[in-house]
Amino acid sequence: MPYVNIKITREGATTEQKAQLIEGVTNLLRDTLGKNPATTVVVIDEVDTDNWGIGGESVTLRRKKGQ
Amino acid sequence: MPYVNIKITREGATTEQKAQLIEGVTNLLRDTLGKNPATTVVVIDEVDTDNWGIGGESVTLRRKKGQ
Amino acid sequence: MPYVNIKITREGATTEQKAQLIEGVTNLLRDTLGKNPATTVVVIDEVDTDNWGIGGESVTLRRKKGQ
Amino acid sequence: MPYVNIKITREGATTEQKAQLIEGVTNLLRDTLGKNPATTVVVIDEVDTDNWGIGGESVTLRRKKGQ
Amino acid sequence: MPYVNIKITREGATTEQKAQLIEGVTNLLRDTLGKNPATTVVVIDEVDTDNWGIGGESVTLRRKKGQ
Amino acid sequence: MPYVNIKITREGATTEQKAQLIEGVTNLLRDTLGKNPATTVVVIDEVDTDNWGIGGESVTLRRKKGQ
Repeated sequence: MPYVNIKITREGATTEQKAQLIEGVTNLLRDTLGKNPATTVVVIDEVDTDNWGIGGESVTLRRKKGQ
Repeated sequence: MPYVNIKITREGATTEQKAQLIEGVTNLLRDTLGKNPATTVVVIDEVDTDNWGIGGESVTLRRKKGQ
Repeated sequence: MPYVNIKITREGATTEQKAQLIEGVTNLLRDTLGKNPATTVVVIDEVDTDNWGIGGESVTLRRKKGQ
Repeated sequence: MPYVNIKITREGATTEQKAQLIEGVTNLLRDTLGKNPATTVVVIDEVDTDNWGIGGESVTLRRKKGQ
Repeated sequence: MPYVNIKITREGATTEQKAQLIEGVTNLLRDTLGKNPATTVVVIDEVDTDNWGIGGESVTLRRKKGQ
Repeated sequence: MPYVNIKITREGATTEQKAQLIEGVTNLLRDTLGKNPATTVVVIDEVDTDNWGIGGESVTLRRKKGQ
């Protein structure tokens, strides 16, 4: 019954990609620790780039500077 | 001054129901551990069903399959 | 399949009290939103009082000042 | 490589204010613990006032009562 | 620069298994969303079984009942 | 009533340094968004280096390699 929270910037992850993340991390926990997929919870949070900072700057600003 | 984070899928919880969750968990902490309601913080996160996985699948997919 | 995270200071919550928190919040979600207890995950984090701040001070310091 | 999550109610924080929070907390970690800004991640979550409770009530309700 | 938080019960995960989780989820994000491993942060929280509840009971109690 | 969670590796942060983080981030929220220090909650999580990954490796391993 693991709980996994994946936070990414809101930059166009598709439904299909998010499904792959859910399946992939559930299988990883099954294969690595024998965890039961039926009670493995995965939550993906997509965060606006204004609200995500790295290097002391928002990702919005970094994208404008080509980073 | 407890902090409680309740994550649920975004499937129509009403303002009234969310108020009940806030009141209920605040009272639970007061009655169980004597915590002061005035500094008990409760945050409810509602997550899109594409972004919530269980059993290796998104809740969107499971709902389509009647689960 | 809600996920609930309860953060409290590490100040002697007993196994019995933690069991009451788990049972209480699971029942609250069942009664308020009809959530299935079997997939309701509750995680309690107990945090050292040096590591918990309110009013700009650690709880350790506030306890010394009788707060 | 610290990770900082700042949760605030969604009550009009501007892009500029959020940039100040990101810069400020990154500098604080650099100056206090010598952490490298380049790998310091800051995520700001803005939460609807219906979904934030204190004193057993939602912030929406408290605002209506002038609190 | 994704942030991934994996919460599992404290039931003997080895250093090697935790390294596999870190590597596995970092590669998953690289392969699925093209995320840069160099700024992908993974944090594993191991939680005492008294502090983890499912089905309204602590995992400690469920283990005693052979679940 | 903001909630701030600061996650750092468990590498010797002193009580004094943690007090500075608490005070610093509380003042930052007061000065930037006018938030009330009396209900600003700050929680610092210190994570074992085996349990923190970046670049697909644990910090324990990276430290051994001088990173």
